[in-house]
Amino acid sequence: MTSALSDQDPSRRINPAPHSTQSLDVDGERLWQTLMELAEIGGTPRGGCNRQALTELDRQGRELLIRWCEAEGLEVRFDAIGNIFARRAGREDSADPIVIGSHIDTQPTGGKYDGCFGVLAALEVIRTLNAGGIETERPIELVSWTNEEGCRFAPCMMGSGVFAGQVALEDALSRTDADGVTAGEALKAIGYVGDNTACPTRFAGYLEAHIEQGPILEDTGDTIGVVTGALGLKWFDVTITGMAAHSGSTPMHLRQDALLGATRIVEAVNRIAQSHQPDGRGTVGAFQLLPNSRNVIPGQVILSVDFRHSESEVLETMVAEFRRALDEIVGDSALGIDVTPTADYPPQHFHPECIAAVRQGALAGGYAHRDIVSGAGHDAVFIGDIAPAAMIFIPCEKGISHNEAEYATPEDITAGANVLLHATLSLAGVGE
Amino acid sequence: MTSALSDQDPSRRINPAPHSTQSLDVDGERLWQTLMELAEIGGTPRGGCNRQALTELDRQGRELLIRWCEAEGLEVRFDAIGNIFARRAGREDSADPIVIGSHIDTQPTGGKYDGCFGVLAALEVIRTLNAGGIETERPIELVSWTNEEGCRFAPCMMGSGVFAGQVALEDALSRTDADGVTAGEALKAIGYVGDNTACPTRFAGYLEAHIEQGPILEDTGDTIGVVTGALGLKWFDVTITGMAAHSGSTPMHLRQDALLGATRIVEAVNRIAQSHQPDGRGTVGAFQLLPNSRNVIPGQVILSVDFRHSESEVLETMVAEFRRALDEIVGDSALGIDVTPTADYPPQHFHPECIAAVRQGALAGGYAHRDIVSGAGHDAVFIGDIAPAAMIFIPCEKGISHNEAEYATPEDITAGANVLLHATLSLAGVGE
Repeated sequence: MTSALSDQDPSRRINPAPHSTQSLDVDGERLWQTLMELAEIGGTPRGGCNRQALTELDRQGRELLIRWCEAEGLEVRFDAIGNIFARRAGREDSADPIVIGSHIDTQPTGGKYDGCFGVLAALEVIRTLNAGGIETERPIELVSWTNEEGCRFAPCMMGSGVFAGQVALEDALSRTDADGVTAGEALKAIGYVGDNTACPTRFAGYLEAHIEQGPILEDTGDTIGVVTGALGLKWFDVTITGMAAHSGSTPMHLRQDALLGATRIVEAVNRIAQSHQPDGRGTVGAFQLLPNSRNVIPGQVILSVDFRHSESEVLETMVAEFRRALDEIVGDSALGIDVTPTADYPPQHFHPECIAAVRQGALAGGYAHRDIVSGAGHDAVFIGDIAPAAMIFIPCEKGISHNEAEYATPEDITAGANVLLHATLSLAGVGE
Repeated sequence: MTSALSDQDPSRRINPAPHSTQSLDVDGERLWQTLMELAEIGGTPRGGCNRQALTELDRQGRELLIRWCEAEGLEVRFDAIGNIFARRAGREDSADPIVIGSHIDTQPTGGKYDGCFGVLAALEVIRTLNAGGIETERPIELVSWTNEEGCRFAPCMMGSGVFAGQVALEDALSRTDADGVTAGEALKAIGYVGDNTACPTRFAGYLEAHIEQGPILEDTGDTIGVVTGALGLKWFDVTITGMAAHSGSTPMHLRQDALLGATRIVEAVNRIAQSHQPDGRGTVGAFQLLPNSRNVIPGQVILSVDFRHSESEVLETMVAEFRRALDEIVGDSALGIDVTPTADYPPQHFHPECIAAVRQGALAGGYAHRDIVSGAGHDAVFIGDIAPAAMIFIPCEKGISHNEAEYATPEDITAGANVLLHATLSLAGVGE
């Protein structure tokens, strides 16, 4: 699949909205009410949402979304992995569509905003266009991707991964949940095995609005993050082996303390990330001691290492620095070390014209904004490999997500939807 | 209870053995065979021993030990917590006895030597005296303390703790194992509820031979450790609290990574111990991350701290340095910290005359020896509070103990028993 945008006359790419749409605004209150209504399906006592992929609650959420789409006159289809597309015709209806959306499945203790904001902001864009009687050159497709969270069925971003050819359909359908039910069986049970031929295969552009799931916008006081790409990541499992021994009877100079080696690794990971700012990230998140007893010197530590950066070359440099640091740590000691790579995803660079459309949308709305790189995975990261794509971030309180306490203000929700509206109009073209 | 030694005529305290006992040697092969025979009760396929306190196997081990003692003409009694005493009369039979022994209970995956060596070396001393027709001034009591290991019923060193008044009898008997059986019920079930009035209450001296359970003697090439005391210890639980957050979307400068704080604590504990050598010990043995997920910045770390030293004042200094280090670590960060003391035992200084008797025994045998401080707890540490006491250490391979791989050579076993023999003769006095 290639960029449909690049096939177009350059003069059409960024299509300044005519006066009639420049002042167009979404109905923030309607969007907020819609978000709250969807969140009731799987709503938790602590204000979050538990609506995991391909469950009965997911089915109910899909039904509600489809009812809303059909009320707007959209043509609803779904594909073989259950991704839902809802089409609003364009003036040039055979042109590749501009696709907008995200996902509506949640984590077990998820919030109301992760994913749902992007899908319902897309719905609000369409409602606003319909209410204003505005036609676009290109058709617009709302999309809701299947199983972005990956908590019931691994991997995450399953629906967009299958769509983008990163995950084989048969592989995805064969994945099982904790009860041994396959994703294919679950998809069939909720009635969402669809037909790929009824769905779009080429996107002229893809835009996804999402809560940031991080603290940057809150920290800088910006309302809109113009997402220019996503960090690549490299993950490792590291095992450091020393010698377990009695903490009382073993003098300091005769110890082989695996925890001391692990401590130096934690410091190296952080030092390396700090030296590649602003985009470098280095995290040791999982850490297990053996035998993990208060009066035994740790004989072994198993820990995870997570490096991320926006540029492939820098990510490679970080890993090279890490391997040198490990050599030094082991070289200084009697410790043994084993390093196993466990994941490797390259950085994603979103499409300049899609990024520009988002930035222009933020400027048009008068919103404080900044460029930002997504540190987390999103459906847009897979879709960005096969179509021009970009994302719009809005702040979420304290950066908290995947948590019932997740929160975004109605004002920021409205702002994000307005930016999506104007970026979509810009890419889809306003036919007068 | 006061030292009976101090009541004696100084000229009697270190009683040079007459020529007839100076060349006396234990029968190393007999001792080794006895050790191996006891180890068959609860023997494990991997060559270790699982004979936990107050089990049916413990009963069988006790029966075998008593059979051996009675074959030597010893008078066997046991007290209310099941400590076994086996008495060899002295020429001055009303004098307080010299008591020698250790324990025969093991860890679940214990070895053949921990404890059993001390009890059977004591038996071998008595066998050797009997075979040589040697009388001592003072009576000699072999002792086998109940439940030194504490793995089925906490606390460890239960029998000696009750005897020394450090643990209340009722408290000890009320402790339950994992199945809810009390120590009192288990003691009754194996038939070892005895009578305190039949047992000694004052010891003129107490000697315990034991494997080192550490690597020092092996490292220095010494055969005998003249144990001058035991390290005191202070334990703490430390909780460091930061903020859990996504490892991809949270930039380095906005993190509150609890693991980074914990890392600095591990370093401080080791640095403080290193600065108080040779006796300082500092260990972080238990370490738990929350949520402990590879793509989440650690929000909390709970860790244990174990400080030990041979001198109370230095141990206090180490803790003061630790508290200052924690203040610095927290002061530099947004982390919260909570410190809870969980154990506090003062150092034990063994009795100079008992120590001298052990040293003299090592010299008499021509064994390479050195003074050593026990880093682990032993029955002698409790008994040292109520009677003159000392210990004899022999090397164990790689310092490994509480492990089926635990090993001591027949040569070192014999050497340790010979030192016990001559130190016992010295303290008990040889009547000619």
